Amino acid sequence: MVSCCFVKCQMWECIFQNSHFSDFMDKQTGYVTRNLLATPIVMGKEVLAVFMAVNKVDASEFSKQDEEVFSKYLSFVSIILKLHHTNYLYNIESRRSQILMWSANKVFEELTDVERQFHKALYTVRTYLNCERYSIGLLDMTKEKEFYDEWPVKLGEVEPYKGPKTPDGREVIFYKIIDYILHGKEEIKVIPTPPTDHWTLVSGLPTYVAENGFICNMLNAPADEYFTFQKGPVDETGWVIKNVLSLPIVNKKEDIVGVATFYNRKDGKPFDEYDEHIAETLTQFLGWSLLNTDTYEKMNKLENRKDIAQEMLMNHTKATPDEIKSILKFKEKLNIDVIEDCEEKQLVTILKEDLPDPRTADLYEFRFSDLPITEHELIKCGLRLFFEINVVEKFKVPVEVLTRWMYTVRKGYRAVTYHNWRHGFNVGQTMFTLLMTGRLKKYYTDLEAFAMLAAAFCHDIDHRGTNNLYQMKSTSPLARLHGSSILERHHLEYSKTLLQDESLNIFQNLNKRQYETVIHLFEVAIIATDLALYFNCLFFRKRTMFQKIVDACEKMETEEEAIKYVTIDPTKKEIIMAMMMTACDLSAITKPWEVQSQVALLVANEFWEQGDLERTVLQQQPIPMMDRNKKDELPKLQVGFIDFVCTFVYKEFSRFHKEITPMLNGLQNNRVEWKSLADEYDEKMKVIEEMKKQEEGNTTEKAVEDSGGGGDDKKSKTCLML
Amino acid sequence: MVSCCFVKCQMWECIFQNSHFSDFMDKQTGYVTRNLLATPIVMGKEVLAVFMAVNKVDASEFSKQDEEVFSKYLSFVSIILKLHHTNYLYNIESRRSQILMWSANKVFEELTDVERQFHKALYTVRTYLNCERYSIGLLDMTKEKEFYDEWPVKLGEVEPYKGPKTPDGREVIFYKIIDYILHGKEEIKVIPTPPTDHWTLVSGLPTYVAENGFICNMLNAPADEYFTFQKGPVDETGWVIKNVLSLPIVNKKEDIVGVATFYNRKDGKPFDEYDEHIAETLTQFLGWSLLNTDTYEKMNKLENRKDIAQEMLMNHTKATPDEIKSILKFKEKLNIDVIEDCEEKQLVTILKEDLPDPRTADLYEFRFSDLPITEHELIKCGLRLFFEINVVEKFKVPVEVLTRWMYTVRKGYRAVTYHNWRHGFNVGQTMFTLLMTGRLKKYYTDLEAFAMLAAAFCHDIDHRGTNNLYQMKSTSPLARLHGSSILERHHLEYSKTLLQDESLNIFQNLNKRQYETVIHLFEVAIIATDLALYFNCLFFRKRTMFQKIVDACEKMETEEEAIKYVTIDPTKKEIIMAMMMTACDLSAITKPWEVQSQVALLVANEFWEQGDLERTVLQQQPIPMMDRNKKDELPKLQVGFIDFVCTFVYKEFSRFHKEITPMLNGLQNNRVEWKSLADEYDEKMKVIEEMKKQEEGNTTEKAVEDSGGGGDDKKSKTCLML
Repeated sequence: MVSCCFVKCQMWECIFQNSHFSDFMDKQTGYVTRNLLATPIVMGKEVLAVFMAVNKVDASEFSKQDEEVFSKYLSFVSIILKLHHTNYLYNIESRRSQILMWSANKVFEELTDVERQFHKALYTVRTYLNCERYSIGLLDMTKEKEFYDEWPVKLGEVEPYKGPKTPDGREVIFYKIIDYILHGKEEIKVIPTPPTDHWTLVSGLPTYVAENGFICNMLNAPADEYFTFQKGPVDETGWVIKNVLSLPIVNKKEDIVGVATFYNRKDGKPFDEYDEHIAETLTQFLGWSLLNTDTYEKMNKLENRKDIAQEMLMNHTKATPDEIKSILKFKEKLNIDVIEDCEEKQLVTILKEDLPDPRTADLYEFRFSDLPITEHELIKCGLRLFFEINVVEKFKVPVEVLTRWMYTVRKGYRAVTYHNWRHGFNVGQTMFTLLMTGRLKKYYTDLEAFAMLAAAFCHDIDHRGTNNLYQMKSTSPLARLHGSSILERHHLEYSKTLLQDESLNIFQNLNKRQYETVIHLFEVAIIATDLALYFNCLFFRKRTMFQKIVDACEKMETEEEAIKYVTIDPTKKEIIMAMMMTACDLSAITKPWEVQSQVALLVANEFWEQGDLERTVLQQQPIPMMDRNKKDELPKLQVGFIDFVCTFVYKEFSRFHKEITPMLNGLQNNRVEWKSLADEYDEKMKVIEEMKKQEEGNTTEKAVEDSGGGGDDKKSKTCLML
Repeated sequence: MVSCCFVKCQMWECIFQNSHFSDFMDKQTGYVTRNLLATPIVMGKEVLAVFMAVNKVDASEFSKQDEEVFSKYLSFVSIILKLHHTNYLYNIESRRSQILMWSANKVFEELTDVERQFHKALYTVRTYLNCERYSIGLLDMTKEKEFYDEWPVKLGEVEPYKGPKTPDGREVIFYKIIDYILHGKEEIKVIPTPPTDHWTLVSGLPTYVAENGFICNMLNAPADEYFTFQKGPVDETGWVIKNVLSLPIVNKKEDIVGVATFYNRKDGKPFDEYDEHIAETLTQFLGWSLLNTDTYEKMNKLENRKDIAQEMLMNHTKATPDEIKSILKFKEKLNIDVIEDCEEKQLVTILKEDLPDPRTADLYEFRFSDLPITEHELIKCGLRLFFEINVVEKFKVPVEVLTRWMYTVRKGYRAVTYHNWRHGFNVGQTMFTLLMTGRLKKYYTDLEAFAMLAAAFCHDIDHRGTNNLYQMKSTSPLARLHGSSILERHHLEYSKTLLQDESLNIFQNLNKRQYETVIHLFEVAIIATDLALYFNCLFFRKRTMFQKIVDACEKMETEEEAIKYVTIDPTKKEIIMAMMMTACDLSAITKPWEVQSQVALLVANEFWEQGDLERTVLQQQPIPMMDRNKKDELPKLQVGFIDFVCTFVYKEFSRFHKEITPMLNGLQNNRVEWKSLADEYDEKMKVIEEMKKQEEGNTTEKAVEDSGGGGDDKKSKTCLML
């Protein structure tokens, strides 16, 4: 017997009659080794074999010539051995990449929990594992106990846990074992909450691996003294444990999540370092892939939290029975308990009773003003408009649902300075007036008009009083969710969410196609209120689109021809509708001066509030329009707004339908007012400028004083005058 | 030259002087091939080489012996060749598994977007790719265009897109190219929105791959006629394209997400099938791993939606300035604008003015009833309790914040039958009374009492009128989020969320440690209201815990001793507090009979409503307690509830502190009342039973009639009498 000294160095031959020689084998066999020629076959750092020629015949020792022959012969032998070994290595690597590919294939199939993911991967790679049986033990990941479970311990009534713990401090508890049987008939056994004396656990090896995170390769398991594996058959199959390879499954946070144990290599040999390598690859991959199972859990939690918040939100925004009662007073009058019982016609009359007739006539006016009406009364006005366009009866809208929806929409608007329920209502009312008084209804079906009116009411729901740019700059969740038309997409989503609640779904009695039409119109109408789209896409780039339609209609001989020209093409109808939404959204600028001057201040104040936020929260200088310190420039900004944005809209609409001319007239009148204020301010500035110049001739100190507080005070007076 | 006929079959030798022989090479070189001995070296199905001996010397052709020598010699040569080839294969597989391992390592490092994920993986595996340069083109995944982008097309003003499309119908648009340079100095170039004439795209190959999903291996790229690769150097490095291997990256949904292109194998040879295999492995893995980037996007969306919903919810639940004004009327009286300006002492007086003194005294009573007080007034009462325990001044709670918090807590309770704001208030009031009148305060610091009172008010916030079991059975989002103590965890989470808003954070002026103490007490107090815990853990299993404390204290000589015994151990304080929460939660059962009888009906009604839901929504038979048809059994159930749950609590508390005895007395009095009603009902039942038996002697038909409608009517009368 030769002790192994070849491992580190490559030696071509050694003759041993020296201290390295051990007579162990001779003693065992009775054979007498006299002389010996030996050489290793080495590949890289690995000794593949040792060739020995023992006891030279006819001589007392091997000659130099013997050594040469031996060495030459080995050149050939070693190549064959190397081929064999390389092939073995190739096989290992091939199995390794197969295992990885199949595991990846399964892991990326879907997002799922630890158990399912491990099982899918482990089952798929079974043929590459080259063992008779393997099991996976899943560890309880609970780090902290509930406070009430710790009370008895803290009170000293129960002994604190002293058993094995994972390196991160968890108690080692295998909550499930999955046992894969490959020998004989393939079978999978799942053992939930396995007892500690289960054959997979009784040796203590999995617990040891979970405690220390070591890879353990037991070459002769039954003979092991530290771990006491079950000696006989483990179950009715008669299968016995011979060799065991056990590895921890560790996630990227270095927590031990489970233990994988492989039993009995298929060829009967013990597991070697390559087997360890393959098994480690698999467990490592499984461990890493826990990112996905963690994500799965996080995602479920997020989804649940989102659902919970949305349900709570709905609970808070949905009009309560009392609120509905505050609108539908007729219920008490008629002593009706279930609203569905009464006929719509009756209802219309009752609602008309509630709202005095002269006011209903007002609702048909472009010059209508919400200012004298309470927000609560506006809900009734809103309801009335649906009755006026005759859709309640036609589309079988339960009046209680319509009321609940209208009230809920009202509650959906926040109490911000301008983009509140009053604005929402005004846009709805203007849409109504454009359709009826402006006679644009003739291009649309009743269903479309219904959708357009409803969309108009919803178009700014849950507006926060700050614009899209502010959402982006403050990276609000809204901006992170929607890439463009941020607020508009939110208004749309909110509007659609309301309709998903059947008790709020005013379109509940439409068929599927009708409902889809409505939703599509909501999308187009609400997104179209993004003025940035107006600037970028709708009109400044393709200004021609609406204008062309108006041009074409202007040339038509008869109304019928124009109606046909528009209605035959859904795109034209959409473009007109989008433009109507813009006309509604900006309609405050067309109102009588006493209204416009008040509303313009609300708009301006909301802008200034945003400007304040930009200064304080974002630490940025607001643009002049939002800069409270430049409030005197409001008239000038208004003139610019009228000239560059509004005039086109109302001019084209007046050209399209002469009935809409009152809007253009209102606009032009307001332009005169704003222009005179702007001129007045310019004049005043000029005077101040000149005074400054004169004073500059005098002392410099005095000039500084003037342009400070004093000057500002004068400016704000101009503004308050509006 | 020999045409290749060895590929499919293994032949040891062939002599060609026949039709298979081609004189192409001879013509090229001028050499004359007269005879030829050739044999292939084959491994598996692959021809590794062909060995040829050409033109036998000294003879006209090769002899049989020549063939034998040739063949024998080849045995050795082929082994060396095979070793070489196996080694090559081993290298391939080894690179393959390395690429997979490294890609996996990066992919599972974190959840991130497509770009970052691809980049991390591709950069990490660069050394295994064995090419001079490679690039990845990322494709735009947009499937549908915005409606306004399609208008010009639909109107016929713009030509519809006719360029290349992916198999799933997207326009082929590479929105980004990442170009990895490995030759010379390593470098990475990122080309956002690359022009179509960029050298990586100009050939049309990536577009072709994106269109068809084929793997393309161009052995001699510059010579290709179909794709026109850039002939000269592509950039300032002087590098030129020789060979190109291009592959699609396909996700599990079979959408082509990008194209990976590898240029110039490092050894100058064209890419072979093994290179294709490796590259395919990589792109396949990258494609599969898109599950993670998709998940990342989904998760961000979910998170944003959750944040949006929670912000909206807060906006709806948080008390508005008007609501706060409705409580803090003194503001108007004192003409104070900023609440922080006024001193707390003044405030207390003013609040006392608002709430008449006799009523304040009521708040100290165990027999206090909320029934005569409006819900709005109860907010003021709640506020008062914080002043009474003197924590407002001590912990610098801004009165406006306290008011906003209290009002918001009130709004957080839903308008359900029993678990509404009135119940929330009552639990707070009982906690206050236990502390003050019951003198349990002596075990707790002011801070702890503050936390306990606040937690008591919050303990059932946002209760839905259905219990934990119902949440589980209906798999509500709440049940999916919380594994146990479902509603309690929700009440707790909601309470903590409120405190996260600084304008609601009544603990805003505590230091970090104090704040953590408060949060911990909230957790223990609110979770402890889960009666299931009471049954399972707190007392039936460990009933001894609270009892032992009471026993120990009973034996103490002095009050000081008892106080020390309790206060020295935080666990004892927690246990007493948990038991106090139970005593508060169940306190309705201790109220004067006229109150208890009313409240018991509210509880019962809420149960019956849940029972109705179980029948209609879950299609399950409710338990008797929740079964409206068994409403007559209420008195009996109440007696059982008193005996098995309540008596222990109030008996122990009365034993602990005799000041709490009024609660026990109230309980015992109510037991008498319930028992007599139960007995009455039993008596009535007995009579009916006997009548039935007598009638059974007569006709069977009549019996059926009796146990139906008539019997039920009588039962409900008994109940309404309560």
